[in-house]
Amino acid sequence: MEFKSQKLNNGLVVIGELNTSAKSAAVGFFVRTGSRDETGLISGVSHFLEHMLFKGTEKLSALEVNEAFDRTGAQYNAFTSEENTVYYAAVLPEYLEEVTGLWINLMRPALRDEDFNIEKNVIKEEIAMYKDLPSFDVMERCRTLYFDGHPCGNSVLGSDHSIDNLTAEQMRDYFARRYAPNNMVLAFAGDVDWERICSLMTESCGWWQQKTVERQLAHYDGSRRQERVGKANLNREHICLMSAGVSAQDPRRFAASLLGMVVGDDVGSRFFWELVDKAVAESASMQFGAMDGTGAFSSYIRCSSENVTRVLDIVGVVLDELVQNGITKEELQTAKNKLLSALVIKNELPMGRLVDLGFNWTYLNEYFTTEDEVNAIKAVTVDDVQSLIERFDPRNFTQFCLGPARDNQ
Amino acid sequence: MEFKSQKLNNGLVVIGELNTSAKSAAVGFFVRTGSRDETGLISGVSHFLEHMLFKGTEKLSALEVNEAFDRTGAQYNAFTSEENTVYYAAVLPEYLEEVTGLWINLMRPALRDEDFNIEKNVIKEEIAMYKDLPSFDVMERCRTLYFDGHPCGNSVLGSDHSIDNLTAEQMRDYFARRYAPNNMVLAFAGDVDWERICSLMTESCGWWQQKTVERQLAHYDGSRRQERVGKANLNREHICLMSAGVSAQDPRRFAASLLGMVVGDDVGSRFFWELVDKAVAESASMQFGAMDGTGAFSSYIRCSSENVTRVLDIVGVVLDELVQNGITKEELQTAKNKLLSALVIKNELPMGRLVDLGFNWTYLNEYFTTEDEVNAIKAVTVDDVQSLIERFDPRNFTQFCLGPARDNQ
Repeated sequence: MEFKSQKLNNGLVVIGELNTSAKSAAVGFFVRTGSRDETGLISGVSHFLEHMLFKGTEKLSALEVNEAFDRTGAQYNAFTSEENTVYYAAVLPEYLEEVTGLWINLMRPALRDEDFNIEKNVIKEEIAMYKDLPSFDVMERCRTLYFDGHPCGNSVLGSDHSIDNLTAEQMRDYFARRYAPNNMVLAFAGDVDWERICSLMTESCGWWQQKTVERQLAHYDGSRRQERVGKANLNREHICLMSAGVSAQDPRRFAASLLGMVVGDDVGSRFFWELVDKAVAESASMQFGAMDGTGAFSSYIRCSSENVTRVLDIVGVVLDELVQNGITKEELQTAKNKLLSALVIKNELPMGRLVDLGFNWTYLNEYFTTEDEVNAIKAVTVDDVQSLIERFDPRNFTQFCLGPARDNQ
Repeated sequence: MEFKSQKLNNGLVVIGELNTSAKSAAVGFFVRTGSRDETGLISGVSHFLEHMLFKGTEKLSALEVNEAFDRTGAQYNAFTSEENTVYYAAVLPEYLEEVTGLWINLMRPALRDEDFNIEKNVIKEEIAMYKDLPSFDVMERCRTLYFDGHPCGNSVLGSDHSIDNLTAEQMRDYFARRYAPNNMVLAFAGDVDWERICSLMTESCGWWQQKTVERQLAHYDGSRRQERVGKANLNREHICLMSAGVSAQDPRRFAASLLGMVVGDDVGSRFFWELVDKAVAESASMQFGAMDGTGAFSSYIRCSSENVTRVLDIVGVVLDELVQNGITKEELQTAKNKLLSALVIKNELPMGRLVDLGFNWTYLNEYFTTEDEVNAIKAVTVDDVQSLIERFDPRNFTQFCLGPARDNQ
């Protein structure tokens, strides 16, 4: 295992963790842009743009892009979040250069008006589909309520209204501002021919123009507001709670992940034993999510309407108990075992490893081996978790409920 | 990478592919039993039994099983098919022995009446849930029509009726007949301490009693029947076509998988270009499935009711063209690239590797390295595929349609 990095004059960084014993290779462009970098006027543009990259370049039609990926046998895709747009592929080593060349081409897309207008409908169908998933809808609404104007509360998909009004010109402008070489990382993992990749990158990306790219990075502790929305077609109450946590840059992020698991892992957590195992709720989980400059714990609970008060009472008792007595050594050890096995197993695949590599560089400009992360997790103590609970009281949550419409609604 | 195997006096085989550079380890029990080994009277018992194993042993309650897995941090689960019941876990190497010991204990379950009666409802909910998925329902109904009395057409989940009538005594009897040590393989992959595992197995499984276990293995070429069922709540037509193929023991299975991809891979296949890209169908795929002693190609197509005739006409043209002219070199190469990258990437993880190891032993009593399989795929020629098409004419299909109820239904 060997780590390599190189930086072009235009600021584009390429990093690679070379593993000669790997049987596959993975490549990814990590663009530091997402819904938090949008204004209301262009809400949803980052995600829409991600779709548009697959529509081709001046020289390649959408059909040719499709066929080109297909020929290599690559497993490829992309995703957009509040703060990242990631394009990735896993492939046999002999096709890595070809797939990388293809991604490089796609990073300078044509953004044709015609494709833009057709794709609008696909985006609106995706918005409609997610609106129909109450577990997704409640999390997004709670995030917006929690961030209360802070850009991290912006919707990734945007709304029908914002997408209807978005123009191809606005997208091209956003693209020009955000897809600057100094705002992206090109990462590799697995069986990679580093010299070839570096010369390919220098030849193909050297002409990309550096820009000044900004992002608002203020930490935010949450609005602590409470809201409920009723929907005629729902049978269950969906509850989301959010409270403040540390950022992706903060060394306490490992303790925060462990705390999330102790309280709300799918199985064997406090929420599991108090809510799910006792059949008060059908589902109850808590997860910590680290972001650029800020972070939050999010809980999702689904139950019958009759049980809402009881569920919230129990959540209150669980959190009071947590603040008063912290967590036990045994709980911490179990959470470590679960987090470590998930981490190690994911990172055994070049494709899984790529995600950690890319995000560590995006957020921290640093390289950590899997071993470094394992050691950081192993080093977390019960006291570390306790100080975290003291600094970020989980009872100060923002609450959003989505459930059956009531008579007065 | 080193392959090891050992056989106890009672016939239990343990195999392992030891990889000292792996960071995790995987373990699995592959029990050679499934719905094809059931009679109508006990339809669904294999799958129900899989659920019951998690309810514990004479010494362990369901709660204790849950906690014991949780402590190790293992990612674990089980699944049941027409011919296999597989229990598996991926874990950090230091917990492999603990998790293996737990699985060994669970292989001799208590099968308590009380747990059996409670779990019945869970099984019936699962049946209801899958009945609501037309893509699943149509495949299962088509399989039953295709096999027309051959046991491979038996339903994995069973029916409300068969589950209602099933007794705990019948399950215990089925368990005693099928979970014999000589009817299962215990497989390991990744970072495994082989000596410790072998002594654990000898100590803990040596007392299991060998039995005579049978299975009907006749090949079957399909009924070629056609049927349609209308359902009031459906808006789309779901079409399943099945035609004969080779068995899991047949060296032509690689050619068959490649043929399935050329005709019906999700993207870039003949079905994709003729049906999906032209917007005649919303989804169209073909897959080859190898089974014990037999095998079949299954296609699934979803379209609007108005397009059914056109879809079936196009399918006819695609298959005629296939029989007349076979496939091209370029198509074969693209299919190989896709199959190879999927295989290699999956097998890079001990958990993915375990599945191939276990099934190769179950079906063939043989060990193949990933390299062996890669070479077998690379060696397939256009002529190999052509002879396969000649022997198994894909136009001789069984057809099941599930769609909106018509006025006369």
